[in-house]
Amino acid sequence: MNVDLLIVNGYVLTMEDESNQLIENGAVAIIGQTIEAVGKSDDLRANYHAERIIDANNQLIMPGLIDSHIHTGLAILRGVAQDMSHWMQKGIWPFMKHVTKEERIKGSLVNILEGIKAGTTTFADYDTDMQDIVQHYVKIGARACVAEMVNEMPDDIDDLSVGELYPLDAKVGEQKLQKNVDLIERYHGAEDGRITCMLGPQGADMLSLNRMKQIADLAETYDTKLHMHVAQGDREIEQMEKRYDLRTIPFLEREGFLNERLIAVHLTEATKKETEKAAHSGASMICCPGSIGIIDGIVPPMYSFLQAGGTASLGSDQAPGNNSNNMFNEMKFAAIVNKVKYQDPAVFPAELALRAATIEAAKVLGIDHEVGSLEKGKKADIIVINFQEPSLSPVITKPTSNVIPNLVYSARGHEVETSIIDGKVVMEHRQIVTASEEQVVKDAQEAANGLAKRVSKKV
Amino acid sequence: MNVDLLIVNGYVLTMEDESNQLIENGAVAIIGQTIEAVGKSDDLRANYHAERIIDANNQLIMPGLIDSHIHTGLAILRGVAQDMSHWMQKGIWPFMKHVTKEERIKGSLVNILEGIKAGTTTFADYDTDMQDIVQHYVKIGARACVAEMVNEMPDDIDDLSVGELYPLDAKVGEQKLQKNVDLIERYHGAEDGRITCMLGPQGADMLSLNRMKQIADLAETYDTKLHMHVAQGDREIEQMEKRYDLRTIPFLEREGFLNERLIAVHLTEATKKETEKAAHSGASMICCPGSIGIIDGIVPPMYSFLQAGGTASLGSDQAPGNNSNNMFNEMKFAAIVNKVKYQDPAVFPAELALRAATIEAAKVLGIDHEVGSLEKGKKADIIVINFQEPSLSPVITKPTSNVIPNLVYSARGHEVETSIIDGKVVMEHRQIVTASEEQVVKDAQEAANGLAKRVSKKV
Repeated sequence: MNVDLLIVNGYVLTMEDESNQLIENGAVAIIGQTIEAVGKSDDLRANYHAERIIDANNQLIMPGLIDSHIHTGLAILRGVAQDMSHWMQKGIWPFMKHVTKEERIKGSLVNILEGIKAGTTTFADYDTDMQDIVQHYVKIGARACVAEMVNEMPDDIDDLSVGELYPLDAKVGEQKLQKNVDLIERYHGAEDGRITCMLGPQGADMLSLNRMKQIADLAETYDTKLHMHVAQGDREIEQMEKRYDLRTIPFLEREGFLNERLIAVHLTEATKKETEKAAHSGASMICCPGSIGIIDGIVPPMYSFLQAGGTASLGSDQAPGNNSNNMFNEMKFAAIVNKVKYQDPAVFPAELALRAATIEAAKVLGIDHEVGSLEKGKKADIIVINFQEPSLSPVITKPTSNVIPNLVYSARGHEVETSIIDGKVVMEHRQIVTASEEQVVKDAQEAANGLAKRVSKKV
Repeated sequence: MNVDLLIVNGYVLTMEDESNQLIENGAVAIIGQTIEAVGKSDDLRANYHAERIIDANNQLIMPGLIDSHIHTGLAILRGVAQDMSHWMQKGIWPFMKHVTKEERIKGSLVNILEGIKAGTTTFADYDTDMQDIVQHYVKIGARACVAEMVNEMPDDIDDLSVGELYPLDAKVGEQKLQKNVDLIERYHGAEDGRITCMLGPQGADMLSLNRMKQIADLAETYDTKLHMHVAQGDREIEQMEKRYDLRTIPFLEREGFLNERLIAVHLTEATKKETEKAAHSGASMICCPGSIGIIDGIVPPMYSFLQAGGTASLGSDQAPGNNSNNMFNEMKFAAIVNKVKYQDPAVFPAELALRAATIEAAKVLGIDHEVGSLEKGKKADIIVINFQEPSLSPVITKPTSNVIPNLVYSARGHEVETSIIDGKVVMEHRQIVTASEEQVVKDAQEAANGLAKRVSKKV
């Protein structure tokens, strides 16, 4: 049988089921966007004639990583708000209030290239002006589940400090929600299904109840999920208590938002009971261990959420604060911060972290019928990782395998040699083929120089 | 004036003092092994005529990283003992008892290349058969502070479980200490000072008091330090209480070991009071956040040690368990595990982590007169880091600088383009010039294959 692409001679990690089985001397056959077969190299070479063959000798073939929560529009501010309390107000705001849309869009593309170079093939991007940002995904060829961030915060608000109840502006909410609807209308299913869209309410504290209900109705209409920050910080909880006399999760439960459509991001301030309630409701969770660890000094309750039977995945959040967008980082961080939180080295093993960046992430985003594992019929989102780096050597597969532990605790992203998304080679020999990395970095640097000058004048 | 090497046009981070000042468009001039000048590129180009010029445009020039605690002899077992309780007994021992000396030595070289490729220029290697391992450093050209690990554990011991008091074998102790003395006699100050040696008692629980005293006397004789595990795990504390009716630190204090000569590694089980006592004594501390986080689920008390005025640095420990030996990892881990331990994002800022892998590490190892910062007269141990990686872009220096946060939280090691040790280029364009990386990895893989076969037969 003819196929377009055959990747052979590698270790294949399918992530198909919880055994996390490793096929030694394995191969993957691809026709168009789709995986045709996964198996032993000898078998696939015998059964398929390929247009093109990639030799993955001493390399690992695995599903592309999924970054479940990223705000690429903030990448232009990478690293300007670090190691401080009141990150939002004192760290990032003095810069953010001066950033132009053009600067944000330029930074966004750097962020996407950064992700691809570290093995990310799907980006759940959640930001402002998503109709502009989504063009990057169209052009670069990455998979994206995008949402326009919708809030009703007045444009001229200058202070988000804990204390007073924020004013909400219905007109702002209407406009932003319209942008989210336009995004869905135009891009949901675009690029032959590579782009999908969600609703993006920013948080229950930043929207009126009516607007929230309108968003929930739209999720039914479009049969999509709500990507939403939930219980993120004492600021949100205080707002919710002032506004509704309820903490976030009881509020969401009372109003009927706590269900399979909800993707609850962070849960930083959720109690154990609230976390369990969310997990039992069918809502899923996204945990950003690097961002929340560095910005808040908190380990989000992902482990409790999983113990309660919930589905959860990992995200890299934003560059200022985390401050890289690399799922290898997030896997490492998730494991180590949970081990030290519970003072138990057996908690959060490498396999769990890896699943949370692949197949479990696909489930959270509602795209597990398409990606997250290497199986016949799924979309060909595949990364090939060089295991001959000293830091990944030697490879031992018997009597125990060191492949997954080394992948999670030692790989850093630059070992990803090849990235295939939707059947197309997007990166090869670490060169992005769909953009000039040099130009993208240069454009962002020029934008940042202009921004820094403007901010310096105001400080 | 003529110099051998001029590195120009980069951002220079000298780490000279606590201001962590960044020289934009900076340069470094080198004569032989030594830094001749550090300053503005224009000034140095005007004042020096160089044999060779390295253009570091868009790159960062900084002191090479110092790994204060590494057991390279364990690298052959990378990743075989993960995510479990009783790491030593159940994880690594089933493999370790079958490893040959030749296999350990082959693994060691992979570990050293891994470190260099991630910016490490000085390795404080603490292991068995150091006279063999040290040959790698001689050949590769890296700086090393080595110690032979000395204990009195009987060779046929098969179980290190908590409970019974270990038997101690004076003959074993004598032999191992002799190896340490031979190492010092032969290599202390070797390679024109690039190799230095220390005493390496493995732990107060694994040596008789007499042997400990003998080692302390030798430290005076050779005017060197003691690199020693201190309060590492409940196993050690239980042994000490059974043997001396004292916990480790009070024991060390009573017997006169708690002083400037002691480098106390881990302090995992040290109480706050004991930690402060150690810091006040003038002893220094090495913290291995990745290893202890992953193996034990514990955040070592480095922050308390520093708060008490002590000098402390970071180490990567061993590959099985951590399981990479990359100081960028350790810097990130140190910051994040301390932030979540104290639930305070301002704790353990990026600058602190960076100092603990450069100048403070040099102080701990007693080589700060030679390395750890870029200053006229110091040895030229310098790394040049590509800041045009998307993950490090954009660079912002005003009104706040994102260079150190991005270096600590986002760089991963592969951005190190050039490594200069003792004035010699050891890595250039990411190619190690003093060894064949491919061959080193291949040799270690073959050794690991043999080992895995033998272990599989026994399991």
